[in-house]
Amino acid sequence: MPSAATYIAVDWGTTNRRAALIGDDGVVLDGFSDDRGVLSLSRNDYPGEFAAIRGRLGNRPIVAAGMIGSNRGWRDVPYVDVPADLDTLARGAWRDEAHAVTILPGVAQRHPRADVMRGEEVQVVGAVAVGVARAEADGAALFCQPGTHNKWIDVAGDRITGFATTMTGELFALLRRHGTLAGMLDAPVTDGPAFREGLARARSEAGLATALFGVRAGVLLGTVAPADAASFASGLLIGADVAGRAPGGRVHLLGNGPLVDLYAAAIGENGAEVVPLDGTHAFAAGLRLLWEKTR
Amino acid sequence: MPSAATYIAVDWGTTNRRAALIGDDGVVLDGFSDDRGVLSLSRNDYPGEFAAIRGRLGNRPIVAAGMIGSNRGWRDVPYVDVPADLDTLARGAWRDEAHAVTILPGVAQRHPRADVMRGEEVQVVGAVAVGVARAEADGAALFCQPGTHNKWIDVAGDRITGFATTMTGELFALLRRHGTLAGMLDAPVTDGPAFREGLARARSEAGLATALFGVRAGVLLGTVAPADAASFASGLLIGADVAGRAPGGRVHLLGNGPLVDLYAAAIGENGAEVVPLDGTHAFAAGLRLLWEKTR
Repeated sequence: MPSAATYIAVDWGTTNRRAALIGDDGVVLDGFSDDRGVLSLSRNDYPGEFAAIRGRLGNRPIVAAGMIGSNRGWRDVPYVDVPADLDTLARGAWRDEAHAVTILPGVAQRHPRADVMRGEEVQVVGAVAVGVARAEADGAALFCQPGTHNKWIDVAGDRITGFATTMTGELFALLRRHGTLAGMLDAPVTDGPAFREGLARARSEAGLATALFGVRAGVLLGTVAPADAASFASGLLIGADVAGRAPGGRVHLLGNGPLVDLYAAAIGENGAEVVPLDGTHAFAAGLRLLWEKTR
Repeated sequence: MPSAATYIAVDWGTTNRRAALIGDDGVVLDGFSDDRGVLSLSRNDYPGEFAAIRGRLGNRPIVAAGMIGSNRGWRDVPYVDVPADLDTLARGAWRDEAHAVTILPGVAQRHPRADVMRGEEVQVVGAVAVGVARAEADGAALFCQPGTHNKWIDVAGDRITGFATTMTGELFALLRRHGTLAGMLDAPVTDGPAFREGLARARSEAGLATALFGVRAGVLLGTVAPADAASFASGLLIGADVAGRAPGGRVHLLGNGPLVDLYAAAIGENGAEVVPLDGTHAFAAGLRLLWEKTR
C-alpha cells in the first residue's frame, strides 16, 4: 500500500527554505527548495506562501522550523531554554489553527554567554533520536553545523545542554567585500597547502584579528601568493573556530558541501574524529518526532 | 635668536596627514593637519601637494613618513626588514632631488608572520631615542599604537625587533556597518560596565568570532541593553587584542583620544602597567633624528 501524505515539513531559514511532503511512514514523497527565506518576505506574505506550498505539495498541515519563528519571520515564537530535548521543543511549539501551521521554537542559552538558534536544534535532536550519534563514554556528544553562523552544539544523552555560534562565514564574507582585504579573497577556497597553513597559523597565533592582517602583509611581501590568499584566510578563520574543540574526541559534522569539507579537514587536524551526518536526513527525523508530539 | 626653519616634517597616512615646520633647535614653528591622506590622492597629485604645503609653511625640504611611501602613495619605497633602528631606516630613505623630498621607508617582518608598517616606526624609534621609554630589566620594551590597525611593536635596546598588526578597529567598523550586528553598534563606546564585561568575556571565551555573536544574542535575549552593545562589542575586540600581552610588564601607549583610553583600560585590566606617551612628540623626535641622518 503506498504511503499516504500526512504533513508538509519546512526548514525555513534566513535566505532559503526547503519544503517536503512526508508520508505516514516518514518517507519524503515530494519536495522542493528555493530562495524564499524570511529576509525575502514580509509578515503579510506568509498566508500566500502557505497556499503556494500547498498548491505544489498538497493540502496538508504544515510544520516548520527555523527563522520563520523569529522576529524577522511570520510569528515570533519564544525560544525554549537549554537544556532542551524533543519534549521541551514540542511544548514550545506554536500552532495557528486557522492556517493549520505549527511553528517550532528555537533554543536560547543565557549563561555563560547569550546564544540563540532556530532550526539547527531539529537536526541535532533528530540525529540523536534515530541513533546515528556516537556519544563519548560519558554520554556527551558534540555537533558542528558549518554555515554563515557555524553552530557547535553540546548534547548529553538526548538533551541539548549548551551551544556556541561562531560568525566565521560572516566574517569571511565581510572581509572579502569590504575593507583592507577586499579584492584579495575572491579566489575559490580549496583544501590545499595554503588552507592548511592557515589552520596551523590559527593554532599558534595570539589572536584572529592579528592573524588576518598577515594575509594582506603576506601578499604585499610575497610570502602569500595572491591566488592562495582566500584559502589562507579561510584556514585562519576556520582554524580559530575549531581550535581546542574536542581534541581526542568526536565531532558530529552535519551537512555537506565545500564548507563542510573544510571543517572536516580542520577538525581532523585538530586531533578529533569526524562523524559525518546527513543534515537533511537528521532534520526530517527530528521534525517527524516533533510533529508526532505536537499534533 | 629665534629658531630658523630647517625642514618640513610630514606624517602622511592613509586618510590624514600632519605637516610641521621644524626649527633648527627641533621646535615646531608652524603646522597643520588635514584629511588629504594617500587614499584621497592620485600619484600625479603629489608635486602639487608639495607646492601647497610649502605655500603654507615655507620653501624648505620635506621629509615624510607613512603611506606616502607605499604602493598607494607617491613612490613605493621598499621596506627595511626587522631588526630596524635609526640607521637602518635612514639608509632605506629615498630622496627625490628634483622635489627636495625625502621619503622614509616602512618596516617589514617576514617571520614568523608577515607584517608591515609605515609611519608607526618613526614614533617608536623617536620615543626610544629621547629616553622616554622605560624598558624592562632585559632592555625590552613593548609599544602599542591604537588605530584602525593597532600596532604592537617590540623593541630591544634601540632596535625594533618585531611587531604585530591587529585589525581591531577595522573589524569594529565592518561589523557596525555590515552584516548581523549592523545597526546594533551605533552608540558611542564608553569605558563603563559593558566595556569591562566585554574585556572579561574576551579573556574567558574560546574565540573572538564566537564572542561577537553573543552581542546579537544578548540583545535578543535582553542580557545586553541595546545602548550597551557597542561598548560590549568594543570590549570583546580590544580585550581579545590585549589578552596575554605583557602581563606584569609595561606597555608604552602612543597616542591620545577615546580609543587610546579604552586600550589603557584594557591593558590595565590585563595586569600590565601603562606608560602613556605623546605620539606627536615621539614622531617629531624620530623624524628629526632621521632627517639629520639622511640630509
